[in-house]
Amino acid sequence: SRSNERTPPPPVVHYHMNNLTTSNDPIANRETVLILTPLARFYQEYWDNLLRLSYPHELISLGFILPKTKEGNIATAALQAQVAKTQSGPQKKRFASVTILRQDTESPLQTQTEAERHKMENQKARRAAMAKARNSLLFTTMGPTTSWVLWMDSDIIETPTSLIQDLAAHNKPIVAPNCFQRYYNTETKSQDVRPYDYNNWVDSPTAQDLGAKMGNDDILLEGYAEMPTYRSLMAMMYDKSAAPNMEVQLDGVGGATLLVKAEVHRDGAMFPPFAFYHLIETEGFAKMASRLGWKAWGLPNYLVYHYNE
Amino acid sequence: SRSNERTPPPPVVHYHMNNLTTSNDPIANRETVLILTPLARFYQEYWDNLLRLSYPHELISLGFILPKTKEGNIATAALQAQVAKTQSGPQKKRFASVTILRQDTESPLQTQTEAERHKMENQKARRAAMAKARNSLLFTTMGPTTSWVLWMDSDIIETPTSLIQDLAAHNKPIVAPNCFQRYYNTETKSQDVRPYDYNNWVDSPTAQDLGAKMGNDDILLEGYAEMPTYRSLMAMMYDKSAAPNMEVQLDGVGGATLLVKAEVHRDGAMFPPFAFYHLIETEGFAKMASRLGWKAWGLPNYLVYHYNE
Ligand SMILES: Nc1nc2c(ncn2[C@@H]2O[C@H](COP(=O)(O)OP(=O)(O)O)[C@@H](O)[C@H]2O)c(=O)[nH]1
Ligand SMILES: Nc1nc2c(ncn2[C@@H]2O[C@H](COP(=O)(O)OP(=O)(O)O)[C@@H](O)[C@H]2O)c(=O)[nH]1
Ligand SMILES: [Mn+2]
Ligand SMILES: [Mn+2]
Repeated sequence: SRSNERTPPPPVVHYHMNNLTTSNDPIANRETVLILTPLARFYQEYWDNLLRLSYPHELISLGFILPKTKEGNIATAALQAQVAKTQSGPQKKRFASVTILRQDTESPLQTQTEAERHKMENQKARRAAMAKARNSLLFTTMGPTTSWVLWMDSDIIETPTSLIQDLAAHNKPIVAPNCFQRYYNTETKSQDVRPYDYNNWVDSPTAQDLGAKMGNDDILLEGYAEMPTYRSLMAMMYDKSAAPNMEVQLDGVGGATLLVKAEVHRDGAMFPPFAFYHLIETEGFAKMASRLGWKAWGLPNYLVYHYNE
Repeated sequence: SRSNERTPPPPVVHYHMNNLTTSNDPIANRETVLILTPLARFYQEYWDNLLRLSYPHELISLGFILPKTKEGNIATAALQAQVAKTQSGPQKKRFASVTILRQDTESPLQTQTEAERHKMENQKARRAAMAKARNSLLFTTMGPTTSWVLWMDSDIIETPTSLIQDLAAHNKPIVAPNCFQRYYNTETKSQDVRPYDYNNWVDSPTAQDLGAKMGNDDILLEGYAEMPTYRSLMAMMYDKSAAPNMEVQLDGVGGATLLVKAEVHRDGAMFPPFAFYHLIETEGFAKMASRLGWKAWGLPNYLVYHYNE
């Protein structure tokens, strides 16, 4: 007889994917958000900003992937200390769950200064490695109850506290705020802001022509004088006197801060680590999503801020 | 003070992806296997075959995705009954966990007879829908501790009991057995076997030329007289007197039974629901994996059997 066996039967879970909503009122609908961060350097300001997010933390899960480098070890220790503190601190601040992954692939570049990582010849290998890290994180942490995925780089140190609600209110498959940087303007002798992320763009005939003449495995890059694409960059569309909820449809997106309906990823949209229509990583993701029928949108006047090295 | 709060801090999990192995001796290394099945019709023989697998069931998790159709409702009920029975039955037979998903996208074809679903004009929409179902299942069920993913169609009703060990012993990124079908041979008046799955193939110059002349969104299909590709089909390579562990490198694979190292999927290899190098779904997956540096292999003399309608 089996009645005296000790272990209870393992869990069976049954999910109706179409009962999962992604709506413009995610809190009312108790929609879960998975915040995913590839993390090579830990910034306390990033963590503090995360803690200030007003979206109910019990609906937020966090996922991190860190490289297997010396720098990654240092960042892991710093991250773990903050996670431990938060998850044993005030109930309201705790997140539903936290997953920390260490990459199994080596980072191609050990030097990570802004100047070095932005060099054009370093970009393809670097962005392919970043794409694989993002895919690993995504494939491993997304669950059947995830409604939204918020991609957030570890050097995004300031956002509105209502970031998730604000972005979700647009109810778009993919939506990107404008990623800026604070700096000291030596001309005006005052604190100022300037564009940081050039990966949010509307395509151009010039870029299409450049692509058509390239080899199959070649990629187009944005923000390099050597390769002018004449794409319309969201970074350049910022108008501080205009409405923050203004929307523009995008053909390429960055991953610094990006809200994605989980169903977009579930259909198969990932970050191509190879040239996909001459695009790679987050820009290739936008193209792949569009091939799956999902459009990307940007908010030129809604700012988030990147750390200034 | 926080000490009198009742709820314990939520789980923090920390995974070293490079401590996860995928080896030719997966049982000794306690490697976990995720068996994934898109399921439109439930066959008792499929379930019985699964139960007979000799790989330790406590290392196996199961994931299913079923369509939101009348047929899918019937299959869900049948599957749930068997899952409940197994998971409350003998300890040794129970699986580590079972996830059952219902698709949120409608199936494009309600008729599912073999003749109808194999019609060429129906194939692109049908295989795109299958690709999305596979991606949903994969993205939602793969976890940080998954070492291997075994794709297994619901109409695969007979395999060797050592299937997982046998396939893993090849220690390949992707490995496909040969999918055959038992039938009654009216000529010889005896039970016989014949090829069933034509999606495992080695590419040909003819297919490449056909692809080069096609529109960007057009796909090549295998097994249609209207479109001879002259690819080398693994289905035709079966030699019952030859070694069952013979390997052949493949450019396209089917999903009827397919063992994949989880890291291949983690890097981003999914099932393209769109034309990818003129390939779609499982065949597109092999191409995508190859673009990520992972090769696919087939075992022409190692047979699994498809249901015969
Ligand atoms: N897991 C992982 N994360 C990385 C790696 N390199 C950078 N990152 C993180 O990925 C995000 C984007 O990288 P970053 O260097 O800031 O890119 P940039 O600001 O666009 O030049 C940041 O959150 C980094 O901390 C890496 O090799 N592995
Ligand atoms: N989730 C889901 N599974 C499906 C659907 N159509 C077929 N399947 C399953 O997908 C697998 C492959 O489909 P099948 O019709 O057997 O393909 P064929 O044998 O290659 O013609 C089988 O396990 C089916 O039960 C569908 O619309 N949704
Ligand atoms: Mn950055
Ligand atoms: Mn079948």
